[in-house]
Amino acid sequence: MARALVIGANGFVGQHLVTHLKELGDQVVCAGLQGQSSRVSEEDFRSVDITDAQSVRGVVQAVKPDVTYHLAGIAFVPEAEEDFDKALRINVAGTANVARQCHLLEKKTSLVFISSAEVYGSVKSEDLPLKETTPINPNNNYSLTKRMAEMVVERYARAERLSCCIVRPFNHIGPGQDRRFVTANFALQLARIAQGKAEPVLRVGNLEAKRDFSDVRDIVRGYRLLSQTRGGLFNLGSGRASSIQTILDTLIEVSGVGVEIVQDPERMRGPEVPELYGACSRIEQECGWTPQIPLRQSLKDVYQYWSELVACGAA
Amino acid sequence: MARALVIGANGFVGQHLVTHLKELGDQVVCAGLQGQSSRVSEEDFRSVDITDAQSVRGVVQAVKPDVTYHLAGIAFVPEAEEDFDKALRINVAGTANVARQCHLLEKKTSLVFISSAEVYGSVKSEDLPLKETTPINPNNNYSLTKRMAEMVVERYARAERLSCCIVRPFNHIGPGQDRRFVTANFALQLARIAQGKAEPVLRVGNLEAKRDFSDVRDIVRGYRLLSQTRGGLFNLGSGRASSIQTILDTLIEVSGVGVEIVQDPERMRGPEVPELYGACSRIEQECGWTPQIPLRQSLKDVYQYWSELVACGAA
Repeated sequence: MARALVIGANGFVGQHLVTHLKELGDQVVCAGLQGQSSRVSEEDFRSVDITDAQSVRGVVQAVKPDVTYHLAGIAFVPEAEEDFDKALRINVAGTANVARQCHLLEKKTSLVFISSAEVYGSVKSEDLPLKETTPINPNNNYSLTKRMAEMVVERYARAERLSCCIVRPFNHIGPGQDRRFVTANFALQLARIAQGKAEPVLRVGNLEAKRDFSDVRDIVRGYRLLSQTRGGLFNLGSGRASSIQTILDTLIEVSGVGVEIVQDPERMRGPEVPELYGACSRIEQECGWTPQIPLRQSLKDVYQYWSELVACGAA
Repeated sequence: MARALVIGANGFVGQHLVTHLKELGDQVVCAGLQGQSSRVSEEDFRSVDITDAQSVRGVVQAVKPDVTYHLAGIAFVPEAEEDFDKALRINVAGTANVARQCHLLEKKTSLVFISSAEVYGSVKSEDLPLKETTPINPNNNYSLTKRMAEMVVERYARAERLSCCIVRPFNHIGPGQDRRFVTANFALQLARIAQGKAEPVLRVGNLEAKRDFSDVRDIVRGYRLLSQTRGGLFNLGSGRASSIQTILDTLIEVSGVGVEIVQDPERMRGPEVPELYGACSRIEQECGWTPQIPLRQSLKDVYQYWSELVACGAA
């Protein structure tokens, strides 16, 4: 049982992490930007703005956590692409504020920093599967700021008092994810169609890209396990690549509706790496972690989540 | 002969670079922050704020340079330490604006980005001399932002149209350097003492640290040579380490005054690497560059510069 501070607790992954930590009996303090959509109840919640050092100092000094999970930041690639200054302020300077305040705690403490497998960037197919030691080529603002934040954490990790895990999760999906992400987006469109709230036309982007998808509940289980290691850099993913086409086909089958597929130029991202997946033997060896929830089950749960929101008029 | 844009032309190194490029017949456009101390004449000068993408776009599109030398940024370690947000905005986002606008030029063009040997950070003595391939450990805000800016340039370097040099100069000294830097500071104190404008007491910080000092005029000669390569990462330095004590002893000897040395706690930086010097065989092999100006000559010129400023009441 640990005293845990979750920064970014009201985000998609944060909510699942908080649920998991509480199930295991951890004493959890939730922190994040006030006013963001949240299923976290108010009495648990501390408002924190990671771009403000004093705000971070306040919450870290009040909680004096054994473990800090830092999940806050811009998580959507196009949002970082639009405003590099903002991405630097939130993803890099924000992480510096969190790491520095943990470092200044007068106790032995752990920081689990959630980076992203996006930092590998434009990799060649012969580099697959991506290992923690694979050379990186961050090639957009999001992946650049995530690698920059890792460097900031590595700086503080050199201090003895602070043990730091840097996690590079591959894509993860599940109930509660923002509708700008592909599986949430497809599921929402299908749920609307199934309930007669939209024409049976499904708008899609690039379907060929293959990515390493995991269930968010497997991912947060990994974060908890990593918090108990001595730190280091860890990939976290399924180790397999599935195409966006497979995601789409499965969701259509789960929804049971017939749809027309339309490629929407607005949904096509710029030049993308055709295939990405990771080698996750490091976390398996150190923590015994392997993914448990099959992709089909995750997609069923995602569809169920959006169906309920559409049915009650909330989406 | 090249059409050259120098961003940061009114800084210490920028002024020496502009002089050198003009001597070689390059067509030079100077750009920088208006109002900064400058020996660059006004008719040559274009005001640019690198943190403003439109401002950078304006000057790059107007000049359409063959080569852009990007020297602008926070160059003083403690200044970056005080305000990480500002260092990110100027050193990282500013470099992104410059690299992006060069990338958007509809011509083959070169970018020479001036990083810093500080990115090597806390290195072990067995890593000396530092090569371009030596693993880095940036451990302060300045070195972090410089490495981050390198990553931004590496991103644009992957595009074919833009050829990018990333230069990691070691310490460089010469006339015109800001008085916050150690040699300028000692020389100014000694010039004041020599002219009877100060008590014969010289305030110093840590004298044991050994660094790789070059003359700024050798350094800017290296930048010009590198602009003609196909790009890449290059160390630039003397390849030898001299202690701050040696710098001090030489300056005292050059000044001919007798002084009392007082260690000033305010001048002692935090934990520092005891010794740093680089291996610069890469630029020697590609460009035939080797340093020409001996340390003693540089220090004489620095002392002369400050003596003149003190004599006319400007320092």
